[in-house]
Amino acid sequence: MPTQARPATVTAQRPTGQPNVAGQTNKIIAPKLKVYALGGLEEIGRNCTVFECGADIIIIDIGFMFPEEGMPGIDYIIPNFSSLKGKEQNIRGVIVTHGHMDHIGGIPLTIGSLGFPVIYTAPLTAGIIRKRHEEFGNPKQLKIQLVKDGMKIAMGRHFVFEPFHVNHNISDAFGAALHTPYGTILYTGDFKFDFTPVNDEPADLTHIAMFGARGVLALMADSTNAESPGHQISEKQVGAEMDRIFAAAKGRIIIGTFSSLLTRAQQIITLAEKYGRKVLIKGRSMQTNIDLAHSMGYMKIKPGIIAEDHEANRLSDEKVVILCTGAQGEKNAALMRIANNEDRFIHIQPGDSIVFSSSVIPGNERTVQSLKDTLVRQGATVFHYQNLDVHAGGHAKQEDLKLMMRLTKPRYYMPIHGNRFLLEANARLAEEVGMPRENVFVAENGQVVEYDNKGARLTEEKVNTDHIMVDGLGVGDVSQVVLRDRIALAEDGIFVIIATIEQKTGKLIGSPDIISRGFVYMRENKELIEKARAKVKKILTDTDKRSPAFEEHIRNKVRNDMGQFLFTATKRRPMILPVIIEV
Amino acid sequence: MPTQARPATVTAQRPTGQPNVAGQTNKIIAPKLKVYALGGLEEIGRNCTVFECGADIIIIDIGFMFPEEGMPGIDYIIPNFSSLKGKEQNIRGVIVTHGHMDHIGGIPLTIGSLGFPVIYTAPLTAGIIRKRHEEFGNPKQLKIQLVKDGMKIAMGRHFVFEPFHVNHNISDAFGAALHTPYGTILYTGDFKFDFTPVNDEPADLTHIAMFGARGVLALMADSTNAESPGHQISEKQVGAEMDRIFAAAKGRIIIGTFSSLLTRAQQIITLAEKYGRKVLIKGRSMQTNIDLAHSMGYMKIKPGIIAEDHEANRLSDEKVVILCTGAQGEKNAALMRIANNEDRFIHIQPGDSIVFSSSVIPGNERTVQSLKDTLVRQGATVFHYQNLDVHAGGHAKQEDLKLMMRLTKPRYYMPIHGNRFLLEANARLAEEVGMPRENVFVAENGQVVEYDNKGARLTEEKVNTDHIMVDGLGVGDVSQVVLRDRIALAEDGIFVIIATIEQKTGKLIGSPDIISRGFVYMRENKELIEKARAKVKKILTDTDKRSPAFEEHIRNKVRNDMGQFLFTATKRRPMILPVIIEV
Repeated sequence: MPTQARPATVTAQRPTGQPNVAGQTNKIIAPKLKVYALGGLEEIGRNCTVFECGADIIIIDIGFMFPEEGMPGIDYIIPNFSSLKGKEQNIRGVIVTHGHMDHIGGIPLTIGSLGFPVIYTAPLTAGIIRKRHEEFGNPKQLKIQLVKDGMKIAMGRHFVFEPFHVNHNISDAFGAALHTPYGTILYTGDFKFDFTPVNDEPADLTHIAMFGARGVLALMADSTNAESPGHQISEKQVGAEMDRIFAAAKGRIIIGTFSSLLTRAQQIITLAEKYGRKVLIKGRSMQTNIDLAHSMGYMKIKPGIIAEDHEANRLSDEKVVILCTGAQGEKNAALMRIANNEDRFIHIQPGDSIVFSSSVIPGNERTVQSLKDTLVRQGATVFHYQNLDVHAGGHAKQEDLKLMMRLTKPRYYMPIHGNRFLLEANARLAEEVGMPRENVFVAENGQVVEYDNKGARLTEEKVNTDHIMVDGLGVGDVSQVVLRDRIALAEDGIFVIIATIEQKTGKLIGSPDIISRGFVYMRENKELIEKARAKVKKILTDTDKRSPAFEEHIRNKVRNDMGQFLFTATKRRPMILPVIIEV
Repeated sequence: MPTQARPATVTAQRPTGQPNVAGQTNKIIAPKLKVYALGGLEEIGRNCTVFECGADIIIIDIGFMFPEEGMPGIDYIIPNFSSLKGKEQNIRGVIVTHGHMDHIGGIPLTIGSLGFPVIYTAPLTAGIIRKRHEEFGNPKQLKIQLVKDGMKIAMGRHFVFEPFHVNHNISDAFGAALHTPYGTILYTGDFKFDFTPVNDEPADLTHIAMFGARGVLALMADSTNAESPGHQISEKQVGAEMDRIFAAAKGRIIIGTFSSLLTRAQQIITLAEKYGRKVLIKGRSMQTNIDLAHSMGYMKIKPGIIAEDHEANRLSDEKVVILCTGAQGEKNAALMRIANNEDRFIHIQPGDSIVFSSSVIPGNERTVQSLKDTLVRQGATVFHYQNLDVHAGGHAKQEDLKLMMRLTKPRYYMPIHGNRFLLEANARLAEEVGMPRENVFVAENGQVVEYDNKGARLTEEKVNTDHIMVDGLGVGDVSQVVLRDRIALAEDGIFVIIATIEQKTGKLIGSPDIISRGFVYMRENKELIEKARAKVKKILTDTDKRSPAFEEHIRNKVRNDMGQFLFTATKRRPMILPVIIEV
């Protein structure tokens, strides 16, 4: 968010949170303040933090995360708000720090059940949230209150919210200062310090330092890069490296990046203008985001610089830049389709310079590697962040985090945004700058940090943060049972046995049917299938039909015996589904 | 393999390959030499290269690789020898460069079908191959001929094989010099130069330089680390870093590493002796390998230094080192079991220092991260190669590769062992040291490089290298169809519909049965299941039973209509299995 002249504060009343910004120790009559994360402390993504003081609840960010291993078929995971069940009317607002999916992705699926509280956010983020809300076909209008640096917004009796500008790799990112009855808590959100940002103002160091000067109760800071030494590089530096690639490239330049990385897109468009190239944008989400940011004035694009699909083949190679999604190797994303020759217009050719202008999200390493292999095999030259500075991360590295600590001088410190290992790394940084370890809280998702007149502590209280999995239209309807079945099915497939039995006599009618999928290729394993069929026949013939609960009994017997038989024959354990039809 | 005084050569005859070591251009009357890789050029693992000259075939290494994404349930993948079908009697031997699974893992499942050719390898590798062969319950004795540096071994009319010692992170690794009718081809295998190795001699630079002096036709060199600048670090350096950890640790030290990394195990045992700790070895493969190497004299272990499981709890924390498998987060491996509290004796406690003395194999990043999280959550301190030099890779980095090129001065260069991206990076290094690009062959698996009197060239000829997938006892019986089914089942599960129909009337008997697994949790979705059942009933009632091929037709109709119905209701596409029983 661009820094602006500070407007008059919009504080409507004088809540308890207001007077105590200096963190004095004079006794305050207010309920305990509870702070806990509903996500983001044991994973990357699903960022969501709750602040609760008496009848006032504030939520910061509602992100989603992509499924972990062992969650086949799941689209994504959203925060679990069961801890707020019945207290929806206490929610004073949802503060959204910036427009990335790990901070906004859960909004469309949860905001209704939270009773449509007001969303406080910056203009670009608001645009992205609205767009996504529409895509979900949500009829009800969101309540969004735009905020900017310098505002102070009362939220209930106990909180005053004051945004402060930070850098990230999307414009309009801010950190949230929450003035509470016990002092000011700073929540950085995703942040970095960029002294030479693109399409953005530098983080407001003065504003941040002023918090420090007045006294900060606690700092909650981004751990994503807490294991990386040094300072994060500036977006401008990426531009300089890209400039060298543009200057040297004789053929087409193809750049894959995150669709939300609009500052990067801006730099590429600016370089295209400089080098007389036209830009072809591939990928729906990239196109949507650029259109949105451009229409809101967050991007500067000269007329005529953006090319249409059909123009691409008319322009000579040295006149084209292709800006596309898919640098993470996502199925069906633009770069993937181009690499696999599935795009109608663009095909890789020798002489293409391809830039992966992004880091690799953990878990995508093999897919990205195989995408690069495919591109290189077709004669392209590939540049990536491991061999060139073609990507600047959006997160504070170790020295940046120390700078944030030195500027704000918090009494308590709580690492957020990262799995346990990163949270611990972040905590060690706090120790390095001299914070006593007992004032540093490394919490789990749902674990409550309590603030009151006596100070703060990490409690043993934990709210429910079970995964809410989204699969197609289903939200939370995929249980552990279903996942376990999917994993078992993926491992060794399924083996369905259908036997028809005459009800009166208990006699098997005909031969049992056997259908298998994902186990062995049936056509080439007729002998095994025949043996299995004979085995089923024998089980059914030998079993005493007069036994009570015959059907249940015979099903279990078929399941166990056939499981054993198939395991001995193949060392595989397909799921066995016995179906007994009585006629 | 320790360098030794050169024994007399064991060359029995004077094959055509012998006289031409200097790569002279005088005309040679011999068949064309074909060289191709059956694996290792588009992947990490499955290393296997074939040299064929007239009626002489040499194979170097028969490794396996772990499954890639999209291969659920597969155990591993072995080389496809269909190109040698019918020519088994021409195989003059299998040269095995060292004892890692990506070089030996395919032997037990293929050596029989190749007609049990002689395996030429060093003693430790031989021991590991024999052990693995036994584990597979193979009755027939392998034919193994031990080799050592300085030997020259005739293999058929056209080849003389001469091993030369290199370093890797297992003892007894060698490169293979093959003297062919057209000159000497050097195959590095996995290699690094370690001037201060552990339990090993340094790579024999003199021997390697002598090849260069006499003339080298082609160099085939390891690309694994061809993208890493600089030199690979020495195993000794890891020892020095470990020493600092041992000196500082007050509690237990737990070290996870590869079970085959015996030089690392040696260093840890030596450090334990120095610091008065006992070593507890956890993990069957680690135990087996250490026993084997120790019994063969490849490891020095003082009596009494190895502790038994039950001793671990009697010894005080500062007297214990636990050396274990599972640093890749492998399910059921020792460190994983310890972290998850599944080990009977060892439980993580605050004060434990845990060292991940290994790199992370691509694809394992998330699992390893989650393992570290689990350990850190229990209060342990974790050291890994990203923050300390606790692991030395076994592969030449860029400067090492250049050193190998400068020493051997080959006419042709062929990067091996690595996916396309790494092969290209390796090829660029060859260009950097001045080799003409047309003499550098970046091949695909199965693509034939041809050598004759006119020189060498990368041809368009390709032999079959289709994956042979191993799943349980099945070798090659999992087809693409089966894999596709497994992936589909994992994504959205299965929906089985069983309808019984009276043959005479074509009438539905009773209500159709519905069983689903991995789709939705049936108990909580009764309404959907009931709707589905009604829909099936309607389809069966409405369909004209007099149509020809009624059963096939009705099955397709149920599959399509129910697929559409479930997709509309859930946006999921379970596999639909219609079963029509006619009675």
